[in-house]
Amino acid sequence: MSVTHDVADLAGAELGADRIAWASGQMPVLGQVAARFARTRPLAGVRVAACLHVTAETAALMRALRSGGAEVALCSANPLATQDDVAAALVAHDGVQVRARHGEGYEEYERHIEQTVQFGLAGGHTWVTLDDGADLLFVAARLRAAGEQRLAGLVGGTEETTTGLVRLRRLQEQGGLPCPVLAVNEARTERTLNDRHGTGQSALDGIMRATNVLLAGHTVVVLGYGWAGQGVAERARGAGAVVIVCEVDPLRALEARMAGYEVMPALQAAARGDVFITVTGSRGVLGAEHFVRMKDGALLANAGHFDVEIDIDQLRATAVAEPRQVRPLVQSYEMQDGRRLNLLARGRVVNLAAAEGHPAAVMDVSFALQALSVEALVQEPGALAPGVHPVPDEIDREVGRLKLAALGVEIDAPTSAQDDYRRSWA
Amino acid sequence: MSVTHDVADLAGAELGADRIAWASGQMPVLGQVAARFARTRPLAGVRVAACLHVTAETAALMRALRSGGAEVALCSANPLATQDDVAAALVAHDGVQVRARHGEGYEEYERHIEQTVQFGLAGGHTWVTLDDGADLLFVAARLRAAGEQRLAGLVGGTEETTTGLVRLRRLQEQGGLPCPVLAVNEARTERTLNDRHGTGQSALDGIMRATNVLLAGHTVVVLGYGWAGQGVAERARGAGAVVIVCEVDPLRALEARMAGYEVMPALQAAARGDVFITVTGSRGVLGAEHFVRMKDGALLANAGHFDVEIDIDQLRATAVAEPRQVRPLVQSYEMQDGRRLNLLARGRVVNLAAAEGHPAAVMDVSFALQALSVEALVQEPGALAPGVHPVPDEIDREVGRLKLAALGVEIDAPTSAQDDYRRSWA
Amino acid sequence: MSVTHDVADLAGAELGADRIAWASGQMPVLGQVAARFARTRPLAGVRVAACLHVTAETAALMRALRSGGAEVALCSANPLATQDDVAAALVAHDGVQVRARHGEGYEEYERHIEQTVQFGLAGGHTWVTLDDGADLLFVAARLRAAGEQRLAGLVGGTEETTTGLVRLRRLQEQGGLPCPVLAVNEARTERTLNDRHGTGQSALDGIMRATNVLLAGHTVVVLGYGWAGQGVAERARGAGAVVIVCEVDPLRALEARMAGYEVMPALQAAARGDVFITVTGSRGVLGAEHFVRMKDGALLANAGHFDVEIDIDQLRATAVAEPRQVRPLVQSYEMQDGRRLNLLARGRVVNLAAAEGHPAAVMDVSFALQALSVEALVQEPGALAPGVHPVPDEIDREVGRLKLAALGVEIDAPTSAQDDYRRSWA
Amino acid sequence: MSVTHDVADLAGAELGADRIAWASGQMPVLGQVAARFARTRPLAGVRVAACLHVTAETAALMRALRSGGAEVALCSANPLATQDDVAAALVAHDGVQVRARHGEGYEEYERHIEQTVQFGLAGGHTWVTLDDGADLLFVAARLRAAGEQRLAGLVGGTEETTTGLVRLRRLQEQGGLPCPVLAVNEARTERTLNDRHGTGQSALDGIMRATNVLLAGHTVVVLGYGWAGQGVAERARGAGAVVIVCEVDPLRALEARMAGYEVMPALQAAARGDVFITVTGSRGVLGAEHFVRMKDGALLANAGHFDVEIDIDQLRATAVAEPRQVRPLVQSYEMQDGRRLNLLARGRVVNLAAAEGHPAAVMDVSFALQALSVEALVQEPGALAPGVHPVPDEIDREVGRLKLAALGVEIDAPTSAQDDYRRSWA
Repeated sequence: MSVTHDVADLAGAELGADRIAWASGQMPVLGQVAARFARTRPLAGVRVAACLHVTAETAALMRALRSGGAEVALCSANPLATQDDVAAALVAHDGVQVRARHGEGYEEYERHIEQTVQFGLAGGHTWVTLDDGADLLFVAARLRAAGEQRLAGLVGGTEETTTGLVRLRRLQEQGGLPCPVLAVNEARTERTLNDRHGTGQSALDGIMRATNVLLAGHTVVVLGYGWAGQGVAERARGAGAVVIVCEVDPLRALEARMAGYEVMPALQAAARGDVFITVTGSRGVLGAEHFVRMKDGALLANAGHFDVEIDIDQLRATAVAEPRQVRPLVQSYEMQDGRRLNLLARGRVVNLAAAEGHPAAVMDVSFALQALSVEALVQEPGALAPGVHPVPDEIDREVGRLKLAALGVEIDAPTSAQDDYRRSWA
Repeated sequence: MSVTHDVADLAGAELGADRIAWASGQMPVLGQVAARFARTRPLAGVRVAACLHVTAETAALMRALRSGGAEVALCSANPLATQDDVAAALVAHDGVQVRARHGEGYEEYERHIEQTVQFGLAGGHTWVTLDDGADLLFVAARLRAAGEQRLAGLVGGTEETTTGLVRLRRLQEQGGLPCPVLAVNEARTERTLNDRHGTGQSALDGIMRATNVLLAGHTVVVLGYGWAGQGVAERARGAGAVVIVCEVDPLRALEARMAGYEVMPALQAAARGDVFITVTGSRGVLGAEHFVRMKDGALLANAGHFDVEIDIDQLRATAVAEPRQVRPLVQSYEMQDGRRLNLLARGRVVNLAAAEGHPAAVMDVSFALQALSVEALVQEPGALAPGVHPVPDEIDREVGRLKLAALGVEIDAPTSAQDDYRRSWA
Repeated sequence: MSVTHDVADLAGAELGADRIAWASGQMPVLGQVAARFARTRPLAGVRVAACLHVTAETAALMRALRSGGAEVALCSANPLATQDDVAAALVAHDGVQVRARHGEGYEEYERHIEQTVQFGLAGGHTWVTLDDGADLLFVAARLRAAGEQRLAGLVGGTEETTTGLVRLRRLQEQGGLPCPVLAVNEARTERTLNDRHGTGQSALDGIMRATNVLLAGHTVVVLGYGWAGQGVAERARGAGAVVIVCEVDPLRALEARMAGYEVMPALQAAARGDVFITVTGSRGVLGAEHFVRMKDGALLANAGHFDVEIDIDQLRATAVAEPRQVRPLVQSYEMQDGRRLNLLARGRVVNLAAAEGHPAAVMDVSFALQALSVEALVQEPGALAPGVHPVPDEIDREVGRLKLAALGVEIDAPTSAQDDYRRSWA
Repeated sequence: MSVTHDVADLAGAELGADRIAWASGQMPVLGQVAARFARTRPLAGVRVAACLHVTAETAALMRALRSGGAEVALCSANPLATQDDVAAALVAHDGVQVRARHGEGYEEYERHIEQTVQFGLAGGHTWVTLDDGADLLFVAARLRAAGEQRLAGLVGGTEETTTGLVRLRRLQEQGGLPCPVLAVNEARTERTLNDRHGTGQSALDGIMRATNVLLAGHTVVVLGYGWAGQGVAERARGAGAVVIVCEVDPLRALEARMAGYEVMPALQAAARGDVFITVTGSRGVLGAEHFVRMKDGALLANAGHFDVEIDIDQLRATAVAEPRQVRPLVQSYEMQDGRRLNLLARGRVVNLAAAEGHPAAVMDVSFALQALSVEALVQEPGALAPGVHPVPDEIDREVGRLKLAALGVEIDAPTSAQDDYRRSWA
């Protein structure tokens, strides 16, 4: 099978196949979906154009789609995350058109996205996009605006990131969205696995790897008590820390307090914390006024998506000198009074920058949602209007069921008498 | 001031006033609302017709409404809950038209409801209903169907119970709902305080009072993992128990498992538990097939609204004899093989039947939501269509803020730069 | 069988037998000991003289000793705790010489103790004392000092309370202790079940019953972090409270902090707490300087043995008037600035005064330790010198094993290879 | 200052000094001791001979001893742990006689120990040994047996490891111990910081680094519930795992159960676990009979001192082929039925092999205990008989106080009335 591709070196295919095998073993939910796909072939005749991180876990998703009968093309949503050997394996063994090279330049990156969209357009197939930042759909929207006629086959897309959804919702407001999009990262299983438990564990994991700090007995200040903040606070408490939550939303603040956390303004917390973790989705959450109150040796970490939560310009301005690199991922800023504040991973999202990001168990659920979303979009083309939509509840529940099965957990079904009782209420 | 009323004995007014004073002291959130009402008089010229439990906590709500300038009439949603001395105090000291006597008969109860509605209708005022089971609004609906013209002044109502909302939503489907209704018990602060933390604590409190069982080291099976079930499970774990969760919904089951609970079918859990707590909102959750598997000495308690979650008929049928009353609220059923299963409070909701129901801190939030809901309905009459509506988010947030203040907790407001950033996203 | 006795009324025997039956059902560890005793009769020919609380649980212990073949006499360590119907049942059905009446006067109480010691002395048997405050052994010591010769048969005693041990250790220093005494309440199983988990649960249970306060979201200050304080703090955190620990011992304070609690001086905590629980074993832990700083509505409870931990004289002196009884077990003291401090159960140990004291599961372990201690003292008379001794490790481990069995928990035994490995180290 | 030494390369001294500076910043307890030593010079004229891991943290201890006035020589207890640049810095800047090279051979290692003992013997000083495995004291014992007269100046030693204490206690039984030895790792602060919280965190940290497994929702089996096992179980639960404890000691097993863990035999747990962590101090805890029951993908990690807790020979024998290296520290063994069991770090102690071992906060306490122990031995030479002794309680309490101060935690002192009350009891 000769596959169109643009990967670094097909020689890495064997090593890549090993990595994919290990990752697949860690992704039993997706595995169950793939097994069913192989039996029922719901994607026969369908094309899937994907722009994702080209990693072993993504490869497992590509394989699942192939099992379902789809033709698949993949480019990279982040050239620095591309694993060249995985890319090679997908081309060599799985017949996926991969266009991605680790460290590829911007022009190449753009061309690969364009080619991947063209793959979808070609030949009059039903097709679907998988996005991690909305790049494919923005190209499709541009083409539509330019009069492209072949977009009728595009029955829908999926999006994995908050940033991508913001972009797509704006596009929708402007009338430019060419198809329905399922918001995978807003599914309930995703919230639980990814936002709460995934981020909760990996943020603290990143901090421990970067600093080897003992959390027990120390004071951890968690700024932001959304889904991810709840997870971080819960894990910090579970590690023996005294946990303080700072939150501007009164409902979330109350929930934090009712959960047994101390809640206070950030200025007050600044003087108390040994470790600060921002996870607000906002900006400038820790600034000069906080830095001047912090204890000598305080650790500053960000677990939010962007590196704007800790105001690094103000940190630099408050310090008396350039920061010293005291451990590979720790920069120490000295204040005028001799206190040192230690910034982790330059304020970038600490679970990715200092640890390995989400465990495979988290991506397993995300990618199972993706695979089932593709199936749903294909099964009833036109059922949804162009626009951003929630993942159908039934898919969410199916992923819940499969994840429970993967954990070896059985549950009851309601009896018919109970179903009757419930219906009598509604 | 001579007030129309129908209470048992005005002589109890002083004692009643003492009880109201103590209860008010436990309700700082409502107290803050009342203080503002006293300054701004938002309810001047308004009538409020209330059908609630006539208790000291409810009296505090009546006073808050009076502080706001309203004329108020109150009848009882549950004659057995009526505190006669509190009723007397409201009449004697607060000018509230109370029509309620402890243990009043059905006819009297109906007449009081009718009279309370008439109070609203009379004199052409703007008026509002407060319901705990939808009784007032059903009378109003009947009158409307019979051609009553004076319902124009009824700008809205509030409802406190799930049962009431079910009734009202059916009425809405049939086109009979005369005004908008705010669903107080679905507000987010209510979910947190009442369902999760209120029920969580009081269910276990009831079990400890009824049995004096040591929870640490024992296995507690929680059937149902909705808001209340989450609270019960959390508190049982916090008491040192090994906690097993049974749930038929895969999403909730997964959330329970991710929270670190064992999850399994009820049949399997039946053989493991020392204490069983049903909190499903369904029926027949524990039946004969479970009873035959349970350990000698197992405790059976229900924390759901109705006494149908444990199938008592089947329990009785499985037993070899009439149950023995082994403690005031515990009946012991002997099985053929000699095992004894101990039913608490005859399967009625254990936090009310064996303890004191919700702490004042919980009702504080509910009643503050009620007071602010009345204000909102009055301020913009006609803003909402007839139908069941959520409590406006701003009211929920205000209650959150006031509750935080009552707990002595301060929080930050977002900076204007942060507001800009958030807006730039949306 | 005609038994010497002095009980209120034998007519209550049937009701008493019912209570004993229920209590026995809650005490499976003691039940297993009793079953073995019935087979092997290790106490044949032995007399046991007991001065304990005459309750249904104690009755189960008396029965176990009888099963082992002992002749038994029982008087009361606390006349207000005597259950007359239980006393009657022990006389009527179990052949125990009970000398105890509810509310008996001091003279009668003393005479009963004297008679119980005489029972031991009479007839030249091997005999053992069971004390709950050292009363029997102090009488025995006095007799010995007066030249009594028949004390040779007294092979040992057990003591259940810290106070009793303090008295006995002083007696030992003065050379007056007539026999070895096993310190039951210092056994490791007792520490775990009684001090930590028993007190932890029942102290909070008492506070909830007395006040119906919601613990979640509130700040609980635990003064003292010994075994019982650890239990109280753990349960308060498990109930959703923010927990602050105050401790004068730096090692315990550090352990509290490493366990994730805030630790601070009591003066500082005074301004923070909603609920204060003393469990120090010391006196005057909360006094005027704390009262002036406390928040309006603060609850003050003592879970220590004596009512001297909260300085009630200072509380009274700080208040502007006599306290008001706002709930059956709550007195409200008004301060000059209008704040009200609420004292629970007049500062007496809240788990006894406001709840039911320790769950049966706790007494089960204590009394199993007692029964096995009697057996050990009898089996090797003279093995231990006069003096206070720890309960032999093997008894502690046996109770651990039986308690695990009662919980349905199985564990492994070490393999012989593992035993060899361990020995090779020692 | 020219110092006798045998280090790899003095050129690394600057880099080493940087590392020591960072480590010192993480060790505030030792820092407080060093500051007092610098003022009071309690070790003036004393020699300290140390055989420890030559790391930046150890260097901070050496400096503290130097601050106190001691002359110091250091060799390595583990050549693979030696940091050559730190060794250089100690020689170049701190006047410590270091004899240690990374990777030095056995002969060199032995010679360095011998020379370090000779340093103690020379010149008739009072001297003390610091051991991490008892090597120095075994050389001293051998010399004494051979008639060495200069051992009179050896006033005592300290030992940091369980293994070392076992060796020393045997030596003591044989009459060969030349001086008193303080058992630093049995101090109460050490148990709390090192065994419980240090191992608890770092074992899980090691597992996450090695595998990136998500702990929430997964089942973690902890084998062994001593101090370290308690810490591991606590942290695993805090990470959202369902935790099962296996223990052969009934008292520990009961404590685990009362703490809310499931407790069961290892054979039963084998079929349940996703992650297995041995921390028993025993051997062969997981063997063939367990491997055959485990789930596909199970992770096997050891957090005990030696690599004998998981029986790797049996694992290899049970597998159908050589293990595959699936991640840098993970070997996957395939069973006949296709299941794969993943062994971490070849069964070596996972917190050292896969993470960084104990956080600096842990070593801070250990080394402060060491420094104060040296002071105590020197201040009252001859106060203790030759033999292994506990660290004096006053030192333990002082370290507790200093650690609290380092955490910014203040506590109360007992009042004199409270002291009187306590004395009146004792």
